[in-house]
Amino acid sequence: MGGDFGPRVTVPAALQALASNPRLKLLLVGDPEAISPLLANKNAEQLDRLQIIPAEHVVANDVKPSQAIRSSHGTSMRIALNLVKSGEAQACVSAGNTGVLMGLAKMMLKSIEGIERPALVTAIPNLKQQKTVILDLGANINCNSRMLVQFAIMGAVMAEDVAGVKNPRVALLNIGEEESKGLDNIREAAMTLRNSELINYIGYVEGNELLTGKTDVLVCDGFAGNVTLKTMEGTIRVILSLLKSPEGQKKKSSWLMKIFRKLLLKLIAKRFGHLNPDQHNGATLLGLRGIVIKSHGAANENAFKAAIDQAVQAVEKQVSEKIAVRLDAVLPKSE
Amino acid sequence: MGGDFGPRVTVPAALQALASNPRLKLLLVGDPEAISPLLANKNAEQLDRLQIIPAEHVVANDVKPSQAIRSSHGTSMRIALNLVKSGEAQACVSAGNTGVLMGLAKMMLKSIEGIERPALVTAIPNLKQQKTVILDLGANINCNSRMLVQFAIMGAVMAEDVAGVKNPRVALLNIGEEESKGLDNIREAAMTLRNSELINYIGYVEGNELLTGKTDVLVCDGFAGNVTLKTMEGTIRVILSLLKSPEGQKKKSSWLMKIFRKLLLKLIAKRFGHLNPDQHNGATLLGLRGIVIKSHGAANENAFKAAIDQAVQAVEKQVSEKIAVRLDAVLPKSE
Repeated sequence: MGGDFGPRVTVPAALQALASNPRLKLLLVGDPEAISPLLANKNAEQLDRLQIIPAEHVVANDVKPSQAIRSSHGTSMRIALNLVKSGEAQACVSAGNTGVLMGLAKMMLKSIEGIERPALVTAIPNLKQQKTVILDLGANINCNSRMLVQFAIMGAVMAEDVAGVKNPRVALLNIGEEESKGLDNIREAAMTLRNSELINYIGYVEGNELLTGKTDVLVCDGFAGNVTLKTMEGTIRVILSLLKSPEGQKKKSSWLMKIFRKLLLKLIAKRFGHLNPDQHNGATLLGLRGIVIKSHGAANENAFKAAIDQAVQAVEKQVSEKIAVRLDAVLPKSE
Repeated sequence: MGGDFGPRVTVPAALQALASNPRLKLLLVGDPEAISPLLANKNAEQLDRLQIIPAEHVVANDVKPSQAIRSSHGTSMRIALNLVKSGEAQACVSAGNTGVLMGLAKMMLKSIEGIERPALVTAIPNLKQQKTVILDLGANINCNSRMLVQFAIMGAVMAEDVAGVKNPRVALLNIGEEESKGLDNIREAAMTLRNSELINYIGYVEGNELLTGKTDVLVCDGFAGNVTLKTMEGTIRVILSLLKSPEGQKKKSSWLMKIFRKLLLKLIAKRFGHLNPDQHNGATLLGLRGIVIKSHGAANENAFKAAIDQAVQAVEKQVSEKIAVRLDAVLPKSE
């Protein structure tokens, strides 16, 4: 149990998740001395569905991923992934370092056949009251065209099964809509996707369409995906903060204005709540023989609980199994 | 006079600019038969400061830039750039195709010595009531580390002279703050910038800091820059549209609620007006021996006027000349 805040966030989040899902069982991998006190006097039925698995260390956040992976024996991340590998757990949720989680997960769980590199994916709400699945979000900063095509297939499965969209539209993130635009890998991936009857490919989409619902699946390399998602989050945070404390408006802060603002903030919270990083926390590491969910390192209790929920959903929907089947259909092994 | 709407947007914008700046003179390059009727019965003093330069064609928007450049003789874009080259004009403002404008401008005006490729740059308002200069926005989708360093230098000059920031902080856009993060070109540029005493380099900054004012200059390749700027614009548009017409809230649309919303929209307009693409329209093509401003193709009258204003400012501040001097100081030619 690493992440920026460790057990004092993840343990209460685990208890929340157990309370809201009576079928859930959780293994908490970490330092028993840090975890146990946080469980004192909690609901006995929930505690029955919870087990502490001791781990001596957490993965260091300040070293290179390759180095952290080499010295990962005995860390909570490695032990948790091992539980997935052995089948004792069906999913692993971590707030630790993305690069290390990605590397360790790939090493221990292996990729689904046909997937070169797993990708980080999330689903964000869009203007059409649906969700847009976006990947990769930072697991792979250099992607060839084959990887982008594999991301498209994985994203389509996520959109169908997790976001509930039929025949999801798949687009490539680019800096223009014309065919000639963009990097070579993107143009090459576009060619493959255009020719595939099993993918509902709609072409290039630009950053300004992230929230409009123009596409159900948005495919990009991990650098662009990270930039676009973080830019969106940052923009929303800035706007919310300006609305909450509009400087230079103090003279107008009569009680009436305060009520105005409160009402509108409510309205905004209702419309944008899901865009709040606290609520769409949890990116799935897709393409592995097992479910791994990456939480923001700085996730709070609600946000970490959202990541646990996402793991439950991925397990129930059998996402990994479906990706394997779909891959086989779109990119047959005989090719 | 190309762009998506041609003279019916650019001519009224030109008249607006002439009205607001009594020292400005404008050469309108385009089809006299399309332009002249739009000038009928307008202010005589303003018309005195305006001249029509006939051009038979506009650059085609639907062909590859390389092809459009080869067949650019007689186009308004080429004639306008020629006027800058010959010194008859001090700046060129265009709403035409970015790739063609970039290619033609580089071919005709040449780069400042020491600049490999010009970059598209703009300044966006941030939370600290300053502006953040961001480049490249899409002129160069593949950038080596030298180009990123040159962008940093050009961006610092823009921040000082156009945004008015002393000793501007310069950051590289990346997907994490740790030194080991990101693409090779970014890490290499970071090394050069860290070692330069003439650049106030502050490290990596992520997409969520675009509007917070954490840095005065944000340097990135044209792909990432385009993605982050468009994502920001799209997010703001979506939020404003939700605030303007909040579906599912119709029952509450009493007159009081309508007033609430109007007041808050005013407040938002005041705080975010500058983030509205209509008002910060106009990206400068920086690094050339002359001023070239790229307007959004779909710019409306106000937006195109903003692009003209930006050209005036760049000319007055002698941006090109200052970049040449600064380049020489940071990267002496003897190196």
